[in-house]
Amino acid sequence: MNTRLYNARILTMEEGKDLFDGEILIEGNRIAYVGRSLSADELAKKGIKFDKEIDCKRNVLMPSFKDAHTHSAMTGMRSYADDMPLWEWLSTKIFPLEAKLTADDMYEFTRLAALEYVSGGITAAFDMYMNPEYCARALNEMGVRYVGCCDINKFGPSLEEVERRYKVLNKNDGFTSYIMGFHAEYTCTKELLQSISDMAKSLGSPVFTHNSETRKEVDECIERHGCTPTQLFESLGMFENGGGGYHCVYFDDKDIEIFKKHDMTVVTNPGSNTKLASGIAPISKYLSEGIKVAIGTDGPSSNNCLDMFREMFLVTGLAKLHDMDAAAVVPAEVMKMATVNGARCMGLNDSDTLSEGKLADIIMIDLEQPNMQPINNIVDNIVYSGSKTNIKMTMCDGKVLFMDGKYADGVDPEVIYAKANEMMAKYKE
Amino acid sequence: MNTRLYNARILTMEEGKDLFDGEILIEGNRIAYVGRSLSADELAKKGIKFDKEIDCKRNVLMPSFKDAHTHSAMTGMRSYADDMPLWEWLSTKIFPLEAKLTADDMYEFTRLAALEYVSGGITAAFDMYMNPEYCARALNEMGVRYVGCCDINKFGPSLEEVERRYKVLNKNDGFTSYIMGFHAEYTCTKELLQSISDMAKSLGSPVFTHNSETRKEVDECIERHGCTPTQLFESLGMFENGGGGYHCVYFDDKDIEIFKKHDMTVVTNPGSNTKLASGIAPISKYLSEGIKVAIGTDGPSSNNCLDMFREMFLVTGLAKLHDMDAAAVVPAEVMKMATVNGARCMGLNDSDTLSEGKLADIIMIDLEQPNMQPINNIVDNIVYSGSKTNIKMTMCDGKVLFMDGKYADGVDPEVIYAKANEMMAKYKE
Repeated sequence: MNTRLYNARILTMEEGKDLFDGEILIEGNRIAYVGRSLSADELAKKGIKFDKEIDCKRNVLMPSFKDAHTHSAMTGMRSYADDMPLWEWLSTKIFPLEAKLTADDMYEFTRLAALEYVSGGITAAFDMYMNPEYCARALNEMGVRYVGCCDINKFGPSLEEVERRYKVLNKNDGFTSYIMGFHAEYTCTKELLQSISDMAKSLGSPVFTHNSETRKEVDECIERHGCTPTQLFESLGMFENGGGGYHCVYFDDKDIEIFKKHDMTVVTNPGSNTKLASGIAPISKYLSEGIKVAIGTDGPSSNNCLDMFREMFLVTGLAKLHDMDAAAVVPAEVMKMATVNGARCMGLNDSDTLSEGKLADIIMIDLEQPNMQPINNIVDNIVYSGSKTNIKMTMCDGKVLFMDGKYADGVDPEVIYAKANEMMAKYKE
Repeated sequence: MNTRLYNARILTMEEGKDLFDGEILIEGNRIAYVGRSLSADELAKKGIKFDKEIDCKRNVLMPSFKDAHTHSAMTGMRSYADDMPLWEWLSTKIFPLEAKLTADDMYEFTRLAALEYVSGGITAAFDMYMNPEYCARALNEMGVRYVGCCDINKFGPSLEEVERRYKVLNKNDGFTSYIMGFHAEYTCTKELLQSISDMAKSLGSPVFTHNSETRKEVDECIERHGCTPTQLFESLGMFENGGGGYHCVYFDDKDIEIFKKHDMTVVTNPGSNTKLASGIAPISKYLSEGIKVAIGTDGPSSNNCLDMFREMFLVTGLAKLHDMDAAAVVPAEVMKMATVNGARCMGLNDSDTLSEGKLADIIMIDLEQPNMQPINNIVDNIVYSGSKTNIKMTMCDGKVLFMDGKYADGVDPEVIYAKANEMMAKYKE
């Protein structure tokens, strides 16, 4: 499938490159050309036969969003238990329900998440959940890239199972990969953490985990181990191949040094940290220290939606409140987090920017909506007033997954909604 | 125009009434029936001839949103100057530009705002801006109710002009009304404030103003007058007929007592307070003190969008962060702020709930979107994951202003966008 996207404003997200008018040519699943508009002659010389030519009507083409931390299958539990702090919510509501969920439930709930991703411009999810093969299949079938993060903790799975998953799920097909990780310090013994560290080393994998999400988590880790979670993990050699942390709300200077030393990524989840009253991550500080920041929605049961526009506004907005500085964390930085930094920390190095040879993971931002008018500053506008209504097209791997409010052929949202309601009904009785 | 909205889930927002299945009959601009679904016989007995019958397909009908503080015409300056604190932003960017704007510019920019209101489910705006007759006309022409708030300050307009506006704009037509107010303590002399208070008393009007938006504003008022803005206004007899305050981020206990004494409304603007790093208003405290809270978007140059869904999430989310309590400010309270409390503080007492005899100011929330599925708790869901994509229909005064992504006949958004860009281009050169 070769596609020409012409008459566009293009934001490649390449370092230092401003928005410009032009077009993008896609051959198969990769970008064959991105640049100024071509004349008929120039186009002919490219020698590409297009299956589809889309007039972008001067709307914006940019790299798709990458959701760098999520638990997709938790859509089932959206608004099932709101207004509770993290630990109470997990232990009295979520863990008991999750114990009952089947792999098929998780597959269906992940399909529902996939609808939300593609209609909101997200084409890849860094997903941590049980039954990863089911979750991967659900996302892949909808055209979304799955990057699994191991969720091992003292309740399971076994180290052998983790190794099996790592081998099976690293498919090298661009759509399914798996990275070492574990649930969190507070659900793992020190011995288990050491085994995970050893395995990550032997596999050559970076490691990601929930890290310093709440003050309570950090305090209890200090009580148990005499140091913060990050320092504990570092003492076990956990980050030899880098990696990152989800949340990272409460970091001290030593934690920051460790992240810098291993060139690790902070994946911030402002929607979830807000709704669970966990706190505000010190994003300006991370940026000034040169730490890369990516953005995740977290699961739809704690957020409660999978909406990168809301997260982008919150990243900069909460930083402004945290620092009491209206200039904190400018929109260009936020856009980089939601696209380039997300892709790279997930190992999707070919999905980061709109550049020749890269994968065609592209969204079109509809400027012909009142929240985008007048056109004073497009990047600011996307971050400060953008919403899902502005997603005109979502393309992943050269395929259009969503356009003008409609999903790709063969995807029937009503069937997915009905299934999700039917499955959840079993557990609510 | 008589309309039947059937096969709906209905949230009347009447006190203590839960969501139920039923239908709404509209005769002219008012609700003639709201209740359980009627049989063909029962319907015939009502004796209403319907021009339109809409199958709501079990989507939600609820009162439309009321934007209880905005500066609609500031759409023109959206993303014209971001990442600046309030005073610097006003004095170096906004005031100089505003000085150049014509009344026709304001009319056009307000038309643009109206598109954003109706596509986002907002049917009434409590608007403070220059040339109120132009702003009122722009909103009214698009079917949106205008409630003006006087913006007098030491730079204008004259007290005579205010009195003229008050008389001309209180049209008693349900679409245009005007309430006394002034810009803020920091742009008024004490003498002017006394005159405004006297005029409000003689007109029998409540009074609204920007109040305690920033720490700086309160500190400087204390320096100038020896007390907070609220206490200064009270000492001048400003609130004899009640009223309220926009923002109210920094209130002390005496300020709260004054608001309680006069049964006044706090209009919170969390998006703007976040983006300008003004701070987080103590909403839980206001609620526990029995103070009514309504929600405003503030102007689109400080927010930057006119999106009640974003504001609703921020009201509860920021309260949770402020209190470090995930149970703070539950969704049902937030929904009341965005609808009932907004309407009432604007004097739109017939637009508050879906009840027989009330005006038909109604929105339909599309549940057939991934962010609303599965259906575990609809009210929670609207507040925690709702977005403008969920506005399926916006009706004001019995007329459909927006449905399935389309504006009413005769409204051409492209023309309005072109005009806004053309007008703004003059000032950016």
